Amino acid sequence: MKSPDTTTLLELYNVPKAEPLTVENLGESGLLARILPRLKAFDPLLGPGDDAALIAAPGGKFVISVDTLVENQDFRLCWPSGFCSSGFDIGWKSAAQNLSDINAMGAHASSAVISLTLPPTTPVAWVEDFADGFSTAVRELGAIRCAIGGGDLGRGGELSVTAAVTGDLATEKPVLRSGAEPGEVVAVNGVLGVAAAGLALLDSPLTYVEWSEEESALVLGQRRPRPPLAAGPAAARAGATAMMDLSDGLLKDAQRMAMASGVAFDLDTAELSLDLERLKRTSERLQIDPLNWVLGGGEDHGLLATFPQSTQLPVGFRVIGRVKAIEVGVMGPAIYLDGKKPDVAKGYDHFAA
Amino acid sequence: MKSPDTTTLLELYNVPKAEPLTVENLGESGLLARILPRLKAFDPLLGPGDDAALIAAPGGKFVISVDTLVENQDFRLCWPSGFCSSGFDIGWKSAAQNLSDINAMGAHASSAVISLTLPPTTPVAWVEDFADGFSTAVRELGAIRCAIGGGDLGRGGELSVTAAVTGDLATEKPVLRSGAEPGEVVAVNGVLGVAAAGLALLDSPLTYVEWSEEESALVLGQRRPRPPLAAGPAAARAGATAMMDLSDGLLKDAQRMAMASGVAFDLDTAELSLDLERLKRTSERLQIDPLNWVLGGGEDHGLLATFPQSTQLPVGFRVIGRVKAIEVGVMGPAIYLDGKKPDVAKGYDHFAA
Repeated sequence: MKSPDTTTLLELYNVPKAEPLTVENLGESGLLARILPRLKAFDPLLGPGDDAALIAAPGGKFVISVDTLVENQDFRLCWPSGFCSSGFDIGWKSAAQNLSDINAMGAHASSAVISLTLPPTTPVAWVEDFADGFSTAVRELGAIRCAIGGGDLGRGGELSVTAAVTGDLATEKPVLRSGAEPGEVVAVNGVLGVAAAGLALLDSPLTYVEWSEEESALVLGQRRPRPPLAAGPAAARAGATAMMDLSDGLLKDAQRMAMASGVAFDLDTAELSLDLERLKRTSERLQIDPLNWVLGGGEDHGLLATFPQSTQLPVGFRVIGRVKAIEVGVMGPAIYLDGKKPDVAKGYDHFAA
Repeated sequence: MKSPDTTTLLELYNVPKAEPLTVENLGESGLLARILPRLKAFDPLLGPGDDAALIAAPGGKFVISVDTLVENQDFRLCWPSGFCSSGFDIGWKSAAQNLSDINAMGAHASSAVISLTLPPTTPVAWVEDFADGFSTAVRELGAIRCAIGGGDLGRGGELSVTAAVTGDLATEKPVLRSGAEPGEVVAVNGVLGVAAAGLALLDSPLTYVEWSEEESALVLGQRRPRPPLAAGPAAARAGATAMMDLSDGLLKDAQRMAMASGVAFDLDTAELSLDLERLKRTSERLQIDPLNWVLGGGEDHGLLATFPQSTQLPVGFRVIGRVKAIEVGVMGPAIYLDGKKPDVAKGYDHFAA
């Protein structure tokens, strides 16, 4: 039955009842007014709201990185499993991915600026949820000195999110990819293969209501990765000789580091047994070799680092291999698994067909 | 007639003859190897090639801004006039737009990072041309201390370019939008309406072969805007009280500044006569009132600034109005034209239908 008093008011003011408010309805300044309060984190010296934000760089230098997530390439709004990612998930993922690059330099994040490209029909609630996810990740992952300096809003045919993040080094010099030396240990910090297993579940025809609690946790690792943000600066202070974040898969990223350093890595797969064990039940259910996820899966955003053999490793790092010299005149792979050449170069290339 | 020797070689090696090399053929690392040498500018302390670039911030602080250009929203690859923009044009425009934000804070650009989202069929030559355009703009516009620190490459359904740029302040404090005081002069630096007239030509059914030399120059102003990069720091040193870049049109941007400062601006349209004169012939040919372009046209990336009346204006600035107090209790517009309320609020909103 109609409720005459409220219906009349709605009709009088011509309020559409069931349609969500979209960014097209609200316009740019209205949208900014809604999301900026949700991006509150550590205050920048100035911003947002002017042409640029002003950020402190107490060391007289800073590191900077940029990363983009594109709908249907780097995430899906709804997945073959029927599960739908929220704006909060995408905001979290964008923050985590960018903060991880700063972590990998041995730095603490000092600022983030965000550029959002939105189809005009995007619900305003999605954008608010995105902003909440971004700022919650900054806070929960422990980037407590990271100011959100504002950004840019624009229209596009597909949803796309770019963030640039800056950071202050924990030590005088950043830890590069190119510093690994023969005789050192290869170590990782964080989970391996969880985000890839989560992706396999999201992409599986198995519907999300059938996921076990364990499987939902793997999917959460894909939706909201947790880069170990204290570990990058700690590794730098402990004397890590090379470091990078694990975004494209252990094999591919280790190969990049070994090649940048002019060395080879020999990884010990026995050291990955706990990572494989964690994925065992899901891999059996999906009939996928969990080694694919552990060696080839990206997006966990843990850290790969090398340390001198005598170094007491900082909390959370575990040894998974050794750095070897390349013999002069011998063509060989940059990565060995248990002393042997791996049969497939696993890892992610953005443009591979 | 066939030339048997070369044809045989091509066939022998199975070289496709007329197909351009695309980013999909080349892959991410191959593409990076091609474009990074083209992005050489002032060297960063470190980068590109690691997780982040290292940038000097001699003042112990820096400004940062981010902007995105999306295909078919912010630019077209080919226009109704038949003219096709080059990768060089898009690279130039991305650099100019971002450097302009740093200029508007009274700062010199110190670094740029770029994120490119590319459909897999994008020709590699386009991406190389983009990189050349970006670095040429950095050089030619005079951002000689701007290091290109690298970036991110990814795949998407539409072409999209995001750049984040950082800068060092020329004075102790940045020049904000909010510092204009009653009694001061309102001044601009750079052209007004040229990019909008260029856009109208590109969007016109008049084909590009019919453009006069003057019209081609207007189109060049849209394709490759020239923000006056020395003028921002000079204005800051001369004591500008408020400053912003003209990216969305004089009326709209002036309104933002006036509102941020809690004042009104009275603009003198007689001071815009040279801007109108420059556009006269084209406006007659396209039958568009040139005042629309001068007041409402964005993308020229000049500067809008206010100065105390006694200030000797830096080179390139010209007075176009006065700052007025808002009378308490009186609702009025933030912008007056020749003492009167303007009949239309012109300017660009990214989400307006």
